[in-house]
Amino acid sequence: MSSAANSPTALAESLLGGNRRALSRLISWAENGHPGFPAVLEAIYERVGRAWRVGVTGPPGAGKSTLVNELALQLRRAHDLQVGILAVDPSSPFTGGALLGDRIRMEELTADPGVYVRSMASRKSHGGMARAGVDACDVMDAFGIERILIETVGVGQAEYDVMGACDTVVVVMCPGAGDGIQAMKAGILEVADVLVVNKSDLPGADRLYADLVEAAHVRAARPMAAGHHGASARSASPEPEPDASGAWQVPVIQASAGRGEGIAGEASVLEAVANHRAYLEATGLDNARRQKRFAQVRRIVDEELDSRVWSRSDLEDRVLAALKAGSTSYDIARDLVVELIDGLVAQTPQEETA
Amino acid sequence: MSSAANSPTALAESLLGGNRRALSRLISWAENGHPGFPAVLEAIYERVGRAWRVGVTGPPGAGKSTLVNELALQLRRAHDLQVGILAVDPSSPFTGGALLGDRIRMEELTADPGVYVRSMASRKSHGGMARAGVDACDVMDAFGIERILIETVGVGQAEYDVMGACDTVVVVMCPGAGDGIQAMKAGILEVADVLVVNKSDLPGADRLYADLVEAAHVRAARPMAAGHHGASARSASPEPEPDASGAWQVPVIQASAGRGEGIAGEASVLEAVANHRAYLEATGLDNARRQKRFAQVRRIVDEELDSRVWSRSDLEDRVLAALKAGSTSYDIARDLVVELIDGLVAQTPQEETA
Repeated sequence: MSSAANSPTALAESLLGGNRRALSRLISWAENGHPGFPAVLEAIYERVGRAWRVGVTGPPGAGKSTLVNELALQLRRAHDLQVGILAVDPSSPFTGGALLGDRIRMEELTADPGVYVRSMASRKSHGGMARAGVDACDVMDAFGIERILIETVGVGQAEYDVMGACDTVVVVMCPGAGDGIQAMKAGILEVADVLVVNKSDLPGADRLYADLVEAAHVRAARPMAAGHHGASARSASPEPEPDASGAWQVPVIQASAGRGEGIAGEASVLEAVANHRAYLEATGLDNARRQKRFAQVRRIVDEELDSRVWSRSDLEDRVLAALKAGSTSYDIARDLVVELIDGLVAQTPQEETA
Repeated sequence: MSSAANSPTALAESLLGGNRRALSRLISWAENGHPGFPAVLEAIYERVGRAWRVGVTGPPGAGKSTLVNELALQLRRAHDLQVGILAVDPSSPFTGGALLGDRIRMEELTADPGVYVRSMASRKSHGGMARAGVDACDVMDAFGIERILIETVGVGQAEYDVMGACDTVVVVMCPGAGDGIQAMKAGILEVADVLVVNKSDLPGADRLYADLVEAAHVRAARPMAAGHHGASARSASPEPEPDASGAWQVPVIQASAGRGEGIAGEASVLEAVANHRAYLEATGLDNARRQKRFAQVRRIVDEELDSRVWSRSDLEDRVLAALKAGSTSYDIARDLVVELIDGLVAQTPQEETA
């Protein structure tokens, strides 16, 4: 492409016209925090908000990739929907690309022009990964992709953050994963809108299913803390699967993604996702989505402040010297905060500080 | 305790005098970001720096807890060292406490006054967990604990950050963990100072061992990016297990923690940790540790700036209103950054802004 064709305006136009190269390039812009991205988002923003964003997470070995592939196949075959798969990989560039490697085996999917598959690595900070993930989804959404499946590996805060930006979060577990189950129970049940017991033909699946049903009930019985569910969604009238308080009652689905069981049809993952969508649409989807986008604004602000503060090349040497002189981290930090705020002021345009 | 006994000065004195209640209380202060903590750190800082801090991480099911318990037992029995175990749990308060539950089964350890066991949950932000972990280690260190074993669950950025603050990082894997291995290989090898193949009696252990030896060599052959190893440690003269370039050559240890094999003695985890310590001491431990403490200063500064910015109660409503009016996240963020900087200025003491 010529350099004019790479301008934010030209790329945005190409994207809206259905150009896949523009799609790929703009997701790279999102990933790298390209300075032209805000102008692109402005230009495509009217077309953002039509895709349904489904997050899929769970411990290593639970079968997330297989489930995502099966969901994509069903959405293509049965519903003829444009599908995007975004694999958010917490790996570094060291040996990266494992997730994409898995995908490439799914020949049926990658040969299908109705499926767009993309792997994003998190070279960036914690907040940067979730910010980039949301931006990438916005680009796919404006392109015309109707269902976006976002898969993360791991149970950390960054993955939690990525899931918090999705419309529906599917948490996948499988029997026999040992302390993985404990970690998942402890950490990520809170973000689940749909729970899936995968590999439900394996020993221990019934026990896991019973445990999860109980955990979902315990959660429903507790007053929910401020989480990724908007306040309006909690207080609205009952819909598809609400309990007496009007809150969404998390269903537990038994599936075997490797055999294609529990993916579509009755008591399936896709049915549960559709029910959750209907619930949100009935109880205030716009409010729920704005709550999630507030978190995105916060990530962008924090990233910007962080880069303004820590881009100063002299800071590290000065901190190291103060440490060598015996100051504690807190003493150094206290002095820095005062000084950095002064420094930020100096960078503020004159008309704004008057 | 009376309120005077709860002052930073009194608690610091109690801690240095060997009072375990003061130890527990001050770790809670670290965990909760208590405003008195900086003064405590100031008062105990001379006694910080004697403990060796060993991070233990790996995918769920690799046997980290068992390994940590066995390491603690050996350090007690064979070396009569004071041992601390800090289990950093990414779980929320929802069903938390899984890790501590595992510990309580280890009766031999918990009945031993030479072992201090503590579980910390991450109710806080990403950076907050690593910050609190370092503070807790400083407290244990000043108390007189000689070896601190820090265990994390998960492979996310927050865990990576906690590990980056340790003197020696042990990454544990086991055969048959499926895509967990891929995730770990991709993400966390970079922080490993010692690699452990646990459950080395299981099928697939030889293959995993060979893979990891190869991965360690690939890593050694690459010019290292700026990571948690200080520059000085890389450029210094060869010591215990350096390669030709003087860099630490990551050993791969075969162990079976459940059977107590590979923990102490020849070609064991403890031997590898001791070798890594000797390497760091010979090549510039103080510099390496200052590099790590720089990250802690940065976390404290970021936490402080974040709390000053987002403690303003009106921000969320205003952002939600702007989103409703159709502004993009970037447009809103750009305006906020300018305004927030002005707001920070207003909070700066007058003599500093003059």
